[in-house]
Amino acid sequence: MSDRQYFDDFVAGSVHDYGPTGPVTAAEMIDFARKYDPQPIHVDPDWARTGPFGGLIASGWHTAALTMRLLVDSYLPAAASLASPGIDELRWVRPVRPGDVLSVRVTVLEARPSRSKPDRGLIRSRIEVLDGEGLVVMTLVALNMVRRRPGGLPS
Amino acid sequence: MSDRQYFDDFVAGSVHDYGPTGPVTAAEMIDFARKYDPQPIHVDPDWARTGPFGGLIASGWHTAALTMRLLVDSYLPAAASLASPGIDELRWVRPVRPGDVLSVRVTVLEARPSRSKPDRGLIRSRIEVLDGEGLVVMTLVALNMVRRRPGGLPS
Repeated sequence: MSDRQYFDDFVAGSVHDYGPTGPVTAAEMIDFARKYDPQPIHVDPDWARTGPFGGLIASGWHTAALTMRLLVDSYLPAAASLASPGIDELRWVRPVRPGDVLSVRVTVLEARPSRSKPDRGLIRSRIEVLDGEGLVVMTLVALNMVRRRPGGLPS
Repeated sequence: MSDRQYFDDFVAGSVHDYGPTGPVTAAEMIDFARKYDPQPIHVDPDWARTGPFGGLIASGWHTAALTMRLLVDSYLPAAASLASPGIDELRWVRPVRPGDVLSVRVTVLEARPSRSKPDRGLIRSRIEVLDGEGLVVMTLVALNMVRRRPGGLPS
């Protein structure tokens, strides 16, 4: 549950840490990848053992989906969050392996009120995803439209 | 199955169409979103009916995952595809609803041999995801490292 309710509660420069998730299992990694990214390095442990990472690694889209879950559970305000326009500069930096746990460090880069729609604003956030040793596995910049507080000031 | 085997087979400026997928079902959308993006607009049809889109819409990450499946099945060379460094400028343009089918139009923007690793090169591709009416629902720029053909020329 986020402790921010509305756009007005996001402070540029503030940093927030969430997680970790439970360990990502090989079974979950393979299940996701069979549906959406069935490359041998994500679905075939025997092949992956002889591959460039010496073992199975998560689809990068699975890492992104697990990151979204952390953001929905902890960062985005449940009632005021509107559709996201998109994301920028997603980078897969290190592999995620079975047993890894993931955390996120979120930095609010910008909170910009909409000019055309005064009931909302755009939040730009830098997201760094860390494994259990604190090493960065993925980074991205998220864009989120969030409703402004009715009346303007905290109640 | 891609008709490109190696980096050398990607031609800047070429355009490729793949799909459509089968219809995306509400059950699959809800299943994905319950795990990774449990916002009411993605998991609660009753709430969604009264929401801004007048009904359930897919998590944007689900749309991205379904797009990856099309790219793995048809665009990326199975044996020569290496890890992706990331993606740029992902934009969710229109909602994806139950029953929609998705296609992709892929434009090879750039095929750049690696300077540090002469056995591979970087492909930059513009990906446009279209619904059954040909309307764009998502766009992104994908980065993919792909192995060069051993010996240099097609066999």
